[in-house]
Amino acid sequence: MFMPRRIVEKKLLAFLSEDIGEGDISAAAVIPQDLMVKAEVIAKEDGVIAGIEEAIILAECLGLKTEPKVVDGHKVKNKQILLELSGDAQTILTAERTLLNLISRMSGIATKTHTLTEQLKKAKANIRLAATRKSAPGLLYFDKKAVIIGGGDPHRLHLDDMILIKDNHLVITGGVEEAIKRAKTTASFSKKIEVEVTSIEDALKAAEAGVDIIMLDNFSPKQAKEVVQKLRKSDYAQVLIEISGGVTPENLIEYAATDVDVISMGGLTHSVKASDVSLEIVKK
Amino acid sequence: MFMPRRIVEKKLLAFLSEDIGEGDISAAAVIPQDLMVKAEVIAKEDGVIAGIEEAIILAECLGLKTEPKVVDGHKVKNKQILLELSGDAQTILTAERTLLNLISRMSGIATKTHTLTEQLKKAKANIRLAATRKSAPGLLYFDKKAVIIGGGDPHRLHLDDMILIKDNHLVITGGVEEAIKRAKTTASFSKKIEVEVTSIEDALKAAEAGVDIIMLDNFSPKQAKEVVQKLRKSDYAQVLIEISGGVTPENLIEYAATDVDVISMGGLTHSVKASDVSLEIVKK
Amino acid sequence: MFMPRRIVEKKLLAFLSEDIGEGDISAAAVIPQDLMVKAEVIAKEDGVIAGIEEAIILAECLGLKTEPKVVDGHKVKNKQILLELSGDAQTILTAERTLLNLISRMSGIATKTHTLTEQLKKAKANIRLAATRKSAPGLLYFDKKAVIIGGGDPHRLHLDDMILIKDNHLVITGGVEEAIKRAKTTASFSKKIEVEVTSIEDALKAAEAGVDIIMLDNFSPKQAKEVVQKLRKSDYAQVLIEISGGVTPENLIEYAATDVDVISMGGLTHSVKASDVSLEIVKK
Amino acid sequence: MFMPRRIVEKKLLAFLSEDIGEGDISAAAVIPQDLMVKAEVIAKEDGVIAGIEEAIILAECLGLKTEPKVVDGHKVKNKQILLELSGDAQTILTAERTLLNLISRMSGIATKTHTLTEQLKKAKANIRLAATRKSAPGLLYFDKKAVIIGGGDPHRLHLDDMILIKDNHLVITGGVEEAIKRAKTTASFSKKIEVEVTSIEDALKAAEAGVDIIMLDNFSPKQAKEVVQKLRKSDYAQVLIEISGGVTPENLIEYAATDVDVISMGGLTHSVKASDVSLEIVKK
Amino acid sequence: MFMPRRIVEKKLLAFLSEDIGEGDISAAAVIPQDLMVKAEVIAKEDGVIAGIEEAIILAECLGLKTEPKVVDGHKVKNKQILLELSGDAQTILTAERTLLNLISRMSGIATKTHTLTEQLKKAKANIRLAATRKSAPGLLYFDKKAVIIGGGDPHRLHLDDMILIKDNHLVITGGVEEAIKRAKTTASFSKKIEVEVTSIEDALKAAEAGVDIIMLDNFSPKQAKEVVQKLRKSDYAQVLIEISGGVTPENLIEYAATDVDVISMGGLTHSVKASDVSLEIVKK
Amino acid sequence: MFMPRRIVEKKLLAFLSEDIGEGDISAAAVIPQDLMVKAEVIAKEDGVIAGIEEAIILAECLGLKTEPKVVDGHKVKNKQILLELSGDAQTILTAERTLLNLISRMSGIATKTHTLTEQLKKAKANIRLAATRKSAPGLLYFDKKAVIIGGGDPHRLHLDDMILIKDNHLVITGGVEEAIKRAKTTASFSKKIEVEVTSIEDALKAAEAGVDIIMLDNFSPKQAKEVVQKLRKSDYAQVLIEISGGVTPENLIEYAATDVDVISMGGLTHSVKASDVSLEIVKK
Repeated sequence: MFMPRRIVEKKLLAFLSEDIGEGDISAAAVIPQDLMVKAEVIAKEDGVIAGIEEAIILAECLGLKTEPKVVDGHKVKNKQILLELSGDAQTILTAERTLLNLISRMSGIATKTHTLTEQLKKAKANIRLAATRKSAPGLLYFDKKAVIIGGGDPHRLHLDDMILIKDNHLVITGGVEEAIKRAKTTASFSKKIEVEVTSIEDALKAAEAGVDIIMLDNFSPKQAKEVVQKLRKSDYAQVLIEISGGVTPENLIEYAATDVDVISMGGLTHSVKASDVSLEIVKK
Repeated sequence: MFMPRRIVEKKLLAFLSEDIGEGDISAAAVIPQDLMVKAEVIAKEDGVIAGIEEAIILAECLGLKTEPKVVDGHKVKNKQILLELSGDAQTILTAERTLLNLISRMSGIATKTHTLTEQLKKAKANIRLAATRKSAPGLLYFDKKAVIIGGGDPHRLHLDDMILIKDNHLVITGGVEEAIKRAKTTASFSKKIEVEVTSIEDALKAAEAGVDIIMLDNFSPKQAKEVVQKLRKSDYAQVLIEISGGVTPENLIEYAATDVDVISMGGLTHSVKASDVSLEIVKK
Repeated sequence: MFMPRRIVEKKLLAFLSEDIGEGDISAAAVIPQDLMVKAEVIAKEDGVIAGIEEAIILAECLGLKTEPKVVDGHKVKNKQILLELSGDAQTILTAERTLLNLISRMSGIATKTHTLTEQLKKAKANIRLAATRKSAPGLLYFDKKAVIIGGGDPHRLHLDDMILIKDNHLVITGGVEEAIKRAKTTASFSKKIEVEVTSIEDALKAAEAGVDIIMLDNFSPKQAKEVVQKLRKSDYAQVLIEISGGVTPENLIEYAATDVDVISMGGLTHSVKASDVSLEIVKK
Repeated sequence: MFMPRRIVEKKLLAFLSEDIGEGDISAAAVIPQDLMVKAEVIAKEDGVIAGIEEAIILAECLGLKTEPKVVDGHKVKNKQILLELSGDAQTILTAERTLLNLISRMSGIATKTHTLTEQLKKAKANIRLAATRKSAPGLLYFDKKAVIIGGGDPHRLHLDDMILIKDNHLVITGGVEEAIKRAKTTASFSKKIEVEVTSIEDALKAAEAGVDIIMLDNFSPKQAKEVVQKLRKSDYAQVLIEISGGVTPENLIEYAATDVDVISMGGLTHSVKASDVSLEIVKK
Repeated sequence: MFMPRRIVEKKLLAFLSEDIGEGDISAAAVIPQDLMVKAEVIAKEDGVIAGIEEAIILAECLGLKTEPKVVDGHKVKNKQILLELSGDAQTILTAERTLLNLISRMSGIATKTHTLTEQLKKAKANIRLAATRKSAPGLLYFDKKAVIIGGGDPHRLHLDDMILIKDNHLVITGGVEEAIKRAKTTASFSKKIEVEVTSIEDALKAAEAGVDIIMLDNFSPKQAKEVVQKLRKSDYAQVLIEISGGVTPENLIEYAATDVDVISMGGLTHSVKASDVSLEIVKK
Repeated sequence: MFMPRRIVEKKLLAFLSEDIGEGDISAAAVIPQDLMVKAEVIAKEDGVIAGIEEAIILAECLGLKTEPKVVDGHKVKNKQILLELSGDAQTILTAERTLLNLISRMSGIATKTHTLTEQLKKAKANIRLAATRKSAPGLLYFDKKAVIIGGGDPHRLHLDDMILIKDNHLVITGGVEEAIKRAKTTASFSKKIEVEVTSIEDALKAAEAGVDIIMLDNFSPKQAKEVVQKLRKSDYAQVLIEISGGVTPENLIEYAATDVDVISMGGLTHSVKASDVSLEIVKK
């Protein structure tokens, strides 16, 4: 997900503008104009850091100088300096909250993702941990990027980049086979087709119908293991298998033992514990 | 925070547009055009609900009919139907995720806020629980509204609606008195002035300097109690006292005993546990 | 590519706004206010029609009544009535050109695409005809939709929905295998990976490296046939094969005989012959 | 049509953003970060070049260095280098298609316009070749600019810059005289008034009514010649005469012999044959 | 300047949104939800009214019902009811100020313009009173429309609809003749060419060079009379003559006696005395 | 009201874009490309200057160099040079009008505000002169900033930054006490509450109900004096008192003698006399 800086700037300035309203009346009231200061962005807890690139883009497009001390994806310790800013004091104070909100949300996502992917690695599970479309409205780019920084897979970015036939589609379409048949006829060759199934039978039917990916919806680890084994022994051994629903940090390793290809967790982006970061003016 | 529907529509359509990209290729592939269906939005856990008004605005501006079963602020139970939608199947499926993401985030915020304000009520503490500016970038309106629905106080909306002199301002300005003096000279009469203090001495100086609100930053409950008592006995008994930093759901009641006016917690909006809600097509 | 109407409206109103500037001074000068009239949109040549849905959305959001006589994808004859509009005369005249420009461009694309896909059908070639990213800037949605209406495949919608490793990527990355290896490691499981090759050797290496789609770049029909046969006989028989570059309406059938899966032609959208359509006020 | 660079940037970044979606996943997957490369934009066929200024603006606002080898309006040969770019490889690859799409469309328009204006010059016809409002929606600025670069006249830019009374206006207003009378009464003195006529009688009436420009709609060359001669001998010899409808590259010279002032052709912008241009990474 | 309602809505909602910020906290605090009321918009002084159409568009797009009592251009008396609104009380109160600001500014412009055009009529001067580009930034459409409603001429709308060669252009270009020659060569046939002159000599040279309009810049009435007489007797009697600079309501009639075609006054839009209008809730 | 430059740029470029349309055809026609010139922005009358900061931001983001000779808030004399610009001639000429329109409106507001605040100072009245929400739609930021530069108080910025209960709210709510009670219950602690009263009785009731600010609506100086004295002697001596309605430059000093805290005048921004400023190219 490479994005040219000028396009990211636009998103960041919109966030900043929302936070400011018609102007920072506190900075205007008590801070002298054109006063040059230095500030440090500091971690207040351990974790994987993300959002430094965005913080740099925002700061620089506001005329501040930046000196990053870490790059996105680094593991940082409490009290570690992440980024130094220097420039106009009013500008730094006005941008402080927007900049910190981005870093703390993105780092929260990256840290959670990293913790879980590390668990998978330790369990020697060759499984991707994927996000879902349960990101915060308007923050898709940042949430997905943070997942990637944490070692996760962003999954679909929009409704336009993969066919994913879910339960509600099936309620209307009827069986899995009919839905896949329709999808294969109308979808672009450039897109993968995935279908959500709730039974072993449907999983096998889906594989037979030529789907690219099968999503096991709310399967227990035991059920998942069974269907994975059946599929791996079938003629459709190459089909990708994703499991979704009911996976938690607590039972992740149990699910990892099912040998699916992908585990997706909405919680990576819908329930974020923000990482604590702060900004301190260090030199007048 | 009353907002005319057409202005909310614009924000919601931007969120939807982000999620769709160039079009929902799954709905296009497997769902017939112009098929009328009915769907239910259902709670999947207990909590205080928020975002129903937004869901209705979004659905209706897409041409769907809505029948709400609850209103924002209601306590709902797992499996309770929140909202019925009827209309074009492709439209419902395309909007499903954006609509649910809004309800689940806003309900998560409202539920957390409600739980904590109920604790304060039970403790017979006449204290407001306030949010901070640590909302998700771009979601300010929705995050603040959810706090209000949960019984909390939105605090500042932008950098333009109150003077809040924080630690970093003081690093530059020098003492609390000088900063308040500058603020009182330059700020509009229509705005309150608040200052963040880290010692009893500064709290008293701030009160004397005529500030409207004093924010006790990272005070222990014991320290807070002491400063509140001193202030209440002083000539500045009417000054509002806010405490911020270090307050958690666990120690909230202890802080409540300090008799401050306002307790603010960034976690109300920066670390949201999304409420689980789902949408089910119920009738073809 | 299902898109809710309100999102399409925004794009269409932006086009209209560009054409109007500060107001239609001709309609203001000579047409009475609030005069109700009827108008017909009429084909001025044979072809496959597209853009009727967009014309309806635009007309209706301006308060006009519409009565479509054809639907997108229909073959129409010269002088055939496509759509009836009724309502305020100034509004119809102001919107006329934007509405016709959309129909004529989209119908031009649909007609060209349809003509070529019909040729493939007649030749009994089970081959998809695909567009490329060579659409007009700003018109991606409309150009791609017109290709689909004409029976073509839209191919990638954005740079974010498939990995396509092209010549310039390979100049930097080095060999085909290295590039595919990198892509498989970093890309989301939800995306297909395609690579552009210029030799039979590279095509085989790419298949071996596990790519999903191989694009034969500027191969002659003879060369293409050879590589397709080799691939179909290899262990990677299931790999999709696309041919691109040098395909023209004149040699399409020759290329069709190569048995590739997809033929892509930039000319479907970069060099459009607009279909002639006009609007006539028929009743005062 | 002088436009400050920052305003053009906004349009170009919107085009780029549309093409990218949430990020270039191919460049992200296979191209190293911060790799500096050089690239050449090269003509792949002879023609008049346009869009170089836009390519430079886009490239430079993305942080690339540019070295133009030609300027807009130059005649270029197949394989001629048009522009050198240097800078970050991911940025160049991400912007490549948007940049080429602009150059190829604008050059296609400029080349066609130039070819036809050269024919008029060779025929010693002192006639302007004008575009119409049949440009691609959203591309008005670029289409009109390309016409000017090719030696053509952009004609109206919006519905707000000239009164043009067309057939549909006349259906409602009644006769040519009444329409012109209304226009002269209500229109700003700063705007010209043009009327479309379908008969010699109406042309003479229009001239008498004091119109600035008469548009002969779908006249044969013979009819056109007759009406031009009549007008030139009348008291209204100074009236500008435009001919529109039915003019093709094939019969252009025949129409040129009619001695009209302006020939307008929708095909200059509605049916564009894109010029072939490509971008090649030349140095790692 | 006919503009479809949906395009005007967008401008009006942007104004409203600016005024609201994140929500009307007064209406939210003290006004019950979903309370239906009636309100009257009332003139508080005599004048020509404008902005009623915009008020209706804004009110209706917010879901209010409207009953206009006057139309734009009417002369109204103090205390006259202009418009009745009915609907949701919070919505009416939230929109009140934006709606009144529009009516009062537009009516102020229309009233001033009308007063002066009436003076010209009384003086039997067949002269247009024109605005300039000195409108308020962002309000071009509304300012120009108000001028038209008041009986004035909007003059140029943008820098793209007429060539106007002013003093600063001439400083660079050199003489009037050279500038006009360049303009006639490069400008579209669809645009008029005007030049600003400061001497009789230049006025005559400009006429000879074939300019469409001559602007007399800061001429005294006497000087203006002289140059008009010379031009009217010359071979270029048909050239339009505009006078600009130094014209005030006080000396307007003196200037009118010069027999120019157009008098332009920046003050019509740059120095507006807002008309007093108010909104009153009349029925709960 | 400190606002980072990049956010102001966006507003300024939107104004410029509105004025230009599709391009400056005069500059394109007669001014050579890439000609470097120098220009001066010059006061044409005495007054307090504002908008220089905005002019600099606009000029610099268009690539011009600036050399300010005064700063916002300075008193300037007729013919005084305010700002020197140097750079591309076409750019300067294209931006001239937008730049001047901003300076002249903002300086007009600042000058009027300054004149009146000076009168208050001379009268030794310790009273703030405040603007209202009667600013020009879309120009809120600039109008309010100009008031501040002139020494005035901006008052509310949006409907979201203070509770102000006005006559129409009271028509619906009933008495002043009930309205204030509701406001105190629901409004954020961070916002002040003001109520508009029309009688001494209501003023006293409001003070008793704990309102922060009382607005005396359309009181005569005598009535105002009476209510101020009663309030100052009451238990609510600290309540802020604002007077609004009926205050004019002529009776300002009479009102100043009432000893209110704030006098607000809509005319500061709704009826602006633009300051005369011009731009002159001084060197080729």
